[in-house]
Amino acid sequence: MAVIDVELAGREYEVRVGPGLLYDIAGEASAFIRKGYVCIVADENARKSWGETVARSLQNAGVEPRWFDVPSGEASKSWESLAKLTDWLLEQGVERGDHVVALGGGVVGDLTGFACAILKRGCGFVQVPTTLLAQVDSSVGGKTAINTAAGKNLIGAFHQPSLVLADLDTLSTLPSRELRAGYAEVLKYGVLGDRDFFEWLEDRAYAVLALQRQSLEEAVAQSVAAKARIVAEDERETTGARALLNLGHTFGHALEAETGFSDRLLHGEAVALGMVLAARYSVRRGLMGADEAERITRAVDAAGLPAEISALGITCNGAELTAHMLHDKKMDAGMLPFILLRGIGQAFLDREVHLGDVAAFLDEQLQAH
Amino acid sequence: MAVIDVELAGREYEVRVGPGLLYDIAGEASAFIRKGYVCIVADENARKSWGETVARSLQNAGVEPRWFDVPSGEASKSWESLAKLTDWLLEQGVERGDHVVALGGGVVGDLTGFACAILKRGCGFVQVPTTLLAQVDSSVGGKTAINTAAGKNLIGAFHQPSLVLADLDTLSTLPSRELRAGYAEVLKYGVLGDRDFFEWLEDRAYAVLALQRQSLEEAVAQSVAAKARIVAEDERETTGARALLNLGHTFGHALEAETGFSDRLLHGEAVALGMVLAARYSVRRGLMGADEAERITRAVDAAGLPAEISALGITCNGAELTAHMLHDKKMDAGMLPFILLRGIGQAFLDREVHLGDVAAFLDEQLQAH
Repeated sequence: MAVIDVELAGREYEVRVGPGLLYDIAGEASAFIRKGYVCIVADENARKSWGETVARSLQNAGVEPRWFDVPSGEASKSWESLAKLTDWLLEQGVERGDHVVALGGGVVGDLTGFACAILKRGCGFVQVPTTLLAQVDSSVGGKTAINTAAGKNLIGAFHQPSLVLADLDTLSTLPSRELRAGYAEVLKYGVLGDRDFFEWLEDRAYAVLALQRQSLEEAVAQSVAAKARIVAEDERETTGARALLNLGHTFGHALEAETGFSDRLLHGEAVALGMVLAARYSVRRGLMGADEAERITRAVDAAGLPAEISALGITCNGAELTAHMLHDKKMDAGMLPFILLRGIGQAFLDREVHLGDVAAFLDEQLQAH
Repeated sequence: MAVIDVELAGREYEVRVGPGLLYDIAGEASAFIRKGYVCIVADENARKSWGETVARSLQNAGVEPRWFDVPSGEASKSWESLAKLTDWLLEQGVERGDHVVALGGGVVGDLTGFACAILKRGCGFVQVPTTLLAQVDSSVGGKTAINTAAGKNLIGAFHQPSLVLADLDTLSTLPSRELRAGYAEVLKYGVLGDRDFFEWLEDRAYAVLALQRQSLEEAVAQSVAAKARIVAEDERETTGARALLNLGHTFGHALEAETGFSDRLLHGEAVALGMVLAARYSVRRGLMGADEAERITRAVDAAGLPAEISALGITCNGAELTAHMLHDKKMDAGMLPFILLRGIGQAFLDREVHLGDVAAFLDEQLQAH
């Protein structure tokens, strides 16, 4: 097991990465269970796969699990789910000093974290991410949110968990496409700030995706450590450090919007392709050599992730794609910060990007191949 | 004008107390207006009285006011209002670096502050409280919330404003009963931690309630300064210092619940009577002399506030009243912290109060007179 500390003054917490954690969840989370019951908010699929395991561990420790089921999918990140969940937590008598467990992927983690952020102005929670995407990204760092008619994650809070348990066994029940989508965020940490890790992944992508135990643990732990460093430096995304995590996300967001935030393009797939586009746009801007972008493209493609925008079958033009970017919540005083690259491992925040130029670049990409 | 600093590392802000502030709101708030428009969330009555004044100041400065009206009353602190307000703010293009203005009493301040706490995970806001209660209590300190079926203020956030403008002129349009209810919180600051201020109020209550300019400014400024000190010491109510502000609130909450959170007993009236009960219960516990409780009772009564539980016309017993206390969000691991007194100006947090003893005390109070 690897243990990564997220160092936030007064609110430090551990991310534990390894196999078999759920079999002893009562022991792993014992410091955060102070009553004879614990409230668990669970993705319906995660509960089917792991509910029994979790319940057995708790019951053996004399703790009653109380379950709140959340249907899989983004639709659960709604005002309605939020009100229903907080009503339920209040009914259960959850107090400020209690901890709620979130078992599932990003949807459950975001919804539960936000509910705990606002319940009595803040109670504790433990993240138990069961997807690769959630283990390496959304469960760490305290960003929580729901979606509204105006867009994704526009209503939310910064609220750090007290513990993250990333059980690698849970990834074995994950569909291959979701595993690859999560891998996109792993690759992102290499591309944005760690050339050595990127090169390690060039060698080990196959082993990681085949869930080879050692490579998988190393990949997840390295990703979490990268995120933990950035979050500790800039918890609330004010200095620009945390913004680097958005590498690939601005292009990716436009592609997700254009495909209706649907199964046509998963978030991780959009990030993978967005990373390729950010790399190529950086080349266009003369920031790095074309060979670097080529290498990123190959790494994305080798993981079975989309590396060409033309493969998406969308019929819009560049201006229509950049129009989606205007609704990005990082828009500030009319400018949209972009994460660009000076090379693999050297991402930076550029506040001077002209959307017209981005649109022209996207037109070229749409016409390629 | 008096200016009180709320000293929170990295998030300091000013509370300005004085007459005529709204006539130059564009100047007073200029540091927080960076676009050609500003979003103002307004209590419908406050807008009727002060909308023109505010609009004129902004328009003269070339800033367009955009209004969102909130019906008066607690019913506006709902999930529905919150979703409607955040949708509207998103439509207006409010960004993280923008500030929203809350014009009105505690309802508008709590609702707007909470909306700003969760809009894109946090945007700025300026409090412009137009009731005495909001000026001396709810607008300062960053507690924001809505109500749910389970109770008042159970869903919310700690989110500090960037500026508070307490214009004393707005109090002239306030009904006398509301003014007195707000005065209860002024008196509270004397009773809980400042015997000199309490004695000053014994002399000046009439002048303050008659809105005599100097006495009023002094009373509001002293109250804000007391709250600012406590908030700076314990922003998130973790050390017990901030809990002192709940003097009178646990008894008061039970009385509000028993009277259905209705016009039968305003919040400030409940706090006034709750303070008397906390004082008498402290005497019963041998913590201070009966003369001290008598003096608090007289100060409450002299301000035209209820000082006897028997005057409320409620027909319950002590156990029924303490049952309401069990739903208090400050309940922790089965114990309810009470604020008691060792004398006027010497409040403290007692975690060892037995509800059965409180119920017996309340039975006596209900039967008195």
